[in-house]
Amino acid sequence: MEKQTEISQLGEFGLIDRLTEGLQPVNESTVTGVGDDAAQLRYPDTDVLVSTDLLVEGIHFDLTYVPLKHLGYKAAVVNFSDIYAMNGTPRQITVALAISSRFTVEHIEALYSGIRLACEIYGVDLVGGDTTASRSGLVISVTCIGDAPKDKVVKRSGAKDTDLICVSGDLGAAYMGLQLLEREKNVGRGDKDFIPQFDGKEYLIERQLKPEARRDIIRELDKAGIVPTAMMDISDGLSSELLHICKDSNTGCRVYEDRIPIDYQTAIMAEEVNMNLVTAALNGGEDYELLFTAPLHYHEQLSKMEGIKIIGHITKPELGCALVTRDGNEMQLRAQGFNHMAPEAETEAPEA
Amino acid sequence: MEKQTEISQLGEFGLIDRLTEGLQPVNESTVTGVGDDAAQLRYPDTDVLVSTDLLVEGIHFDLTYVPLKHLGYKAAVVNFSDIYAMNGTPRQITVALAISSRFTVEHIEALYSGIRLACEIYGVDLVGGDTTASRSGLVISVTCIGDAPKDKVVKRSGAKDTDLICVSGDLGAAYMGLQLLEREKNVGRGDKDFIPQFDGKEYLIERQLKPEARRDIIRELDKAGIVPTAMMDISDGLSSELLHICKDSNTGCRVYEDRIPIDYQTAIMAEEVNMNLVTAALNGGEDYELLFTAPLHYHEQLSKMEGIKIIGHITKPELGCALVTRDGNEMQLRAQGFNHMAPEAETEAPEA
Repeated sequence: MEKQTEISQLGEFGLIDRLTEGLQPVNESTVTGVGDDAAQLRYPDTDVLVSTDLLVEGIHFDLTYVPLKHLGYKAAVVNFSDIYAMNGTPRQITVALAISSRFTVEHIEALYSGIRLACEIYGVDLVGGDTTASRSGLVISVTCIGDAPKDKVVKRSGAKDTDLICVSGDLGAAYMGLQLLEREKNVGRGDKDFIPQFDGKEYLIERQLKPEARRDIIRELDKAGIVPTAMMDISDGLSSELLHICKDSNTGCRVYEDRIPIDYQTAIMAEEVNMNLVTAALNGGEDYELLFTAPLHYHEQLSKMEGIKIIGHITKPELGCALVTRDGNEMQLRAQGFNHMAPEAETEAPEA
Repeated sequence: MEKQTEISQLGEFGLIDRLTEGLQPVNESTVTGVGDDAAQLRYPDTDVLVSTDLLVEGIHFDLTYVPLKHLGYKAAVVNFSDIYAMNGTPRQITVALAISSRFTVEHIEALYSGIRLACEIYGVDLVGGDTTASRSGLVISVTCIGDAPKDKVVKRSGAKDTDLICVSGDLGAAYMGLQLLEREKNVGRGDKDFIPQFDGKEYLIERQLKPEARRDIIRELDKAGIVPTAMMDISDGLSSELLHICKDSNTGCRVYEDRIPIDYQTAIMAEEVNMNLVTAALNGGEDYELLFTAPLHYHEQLSKMEGIKIIGHITKPELGCALVTRDGNEMQLRAQGFNHMAPEAETEAPEA
């Protein structure tokens, strides 16, 4: 076993020094980072974007199958995703941790190595934070600061009648990855030599444990000169996010079942656990794909873009929000996404 | 008993809508607040300051004697204090909450009413956040964004040999307030009709439960044309913060025991609990007063300013950091402040 150091040996400041050693800003806007009362940022002619997230052990992650490095990576990336979803570029993050006594310095270093890797890959500076004790479990709070040219920020509220509805990548895989991890955890319970079976389902595991933010899509759209009218990242599920956009834009929508992008591994897993595939894709959540709307005249351009699928269109508000099924029926869209506020939501399967 | 609503009745989005109802931005820099992937801020010719804090039930607060409204107020104000400590003005906050099932909607509304009151008083906009479940207890993460003219930001690292060391207000009272609350909690344990005795010690209770950020001092200094060379707010204790300034500025310091401002209620309480008064003032923490250094030629001006006390001076680094006691001896300063990372630190008295 590797050397483990009690956190109390270093103290709070010693721990912070160790975790933030050698950090060098990569963004011009980062004037002062870790080590003062506040970070100091400079944005001359742009808008500043701020998003924040709180991750709680036992609610958002289960350390029996989530490696700490992956957890750190994901905690950072899901916040970057929020900034990209405003058509911005993430520039800085602050990380606040509450740590219970069962964690050692090496554990927290592993968590930070994931955060720092994500920062490196996405060109983001870690500029501050807070480290404290917790009575039970690990709590991670990440705040991300980004920027965008004033006229390029994309909100939820800009969708217009006849706009195309598009998503990047594919949906439902992260949720199926969670089902798979939960299943193998239950099968392996009490057997310390148990080796979980993920063969042929690596993609699902990766989507759950190591999601990426779709910076590539934002760049592609920018290159093509397309500014979406509304955009969100899919964290709670396609249905939930679409309803947010339609509510805030005062519109309705139609999405087509046969247009929703689903990976074959997601389909196989849904079959195995006897779950309705479309429901999983609509409500699974944690995909961190981009959902956006764009004017109809971009149809040809968007149809040809790799990694983007047109799944429906915006309508007048009186038409409501519906899924058009393969047989031509309309089903009202409902937000059944991950609801961390509902009792036992984190282990509940969506209704089929 | 007032009506109590289960959080699951509203769901996450319903709860957020309820908590953020009627919020109107007061700062020009707040373009978009709550209700999108990220808040949108605009800072044309200034530096942006960001600070973050995580408060955990059972570590930073005890709900047996801290009313939720006060807790919300304090959680916001201590972050404003960090921005003032950089010589900036707090403009926006984001609030992320993890809430266990024993809290109702009315509880969280009480907490938010304190946050909103603090925002109102200090002219800060609540622009975003996250609300989620927790397995045990309440966790509050606040991130504050502020601004300052580029050439006015004051860091920890600017103190110079011969600079004056100043503090605002008085020290040790918040810590003594905590001792008092803990004592009355223990006395009253198991007796539901117990009425705690705070007569004559209201100031200590107020300092612990409802601290204020020293915006007035920042404004006074600005009006007087004084830009401190280094500044911090006193959250961990005077010794700890002074050592930070001296380390980051590569200096030493001398502070004089008889110059440290202490309220008479603090002195009486220290006597009652048989605690060394100066140790409490040096290491108690949570005062949220400002500690700053300024060039020697401001001596006369600073001496005359209400609420500011000159307690010592900066020295060359080789002289180290010391307290000069009343009898003229020198005691090396050590950081014994609240250390939330040490086991049982939150209930430990500083060494006498």
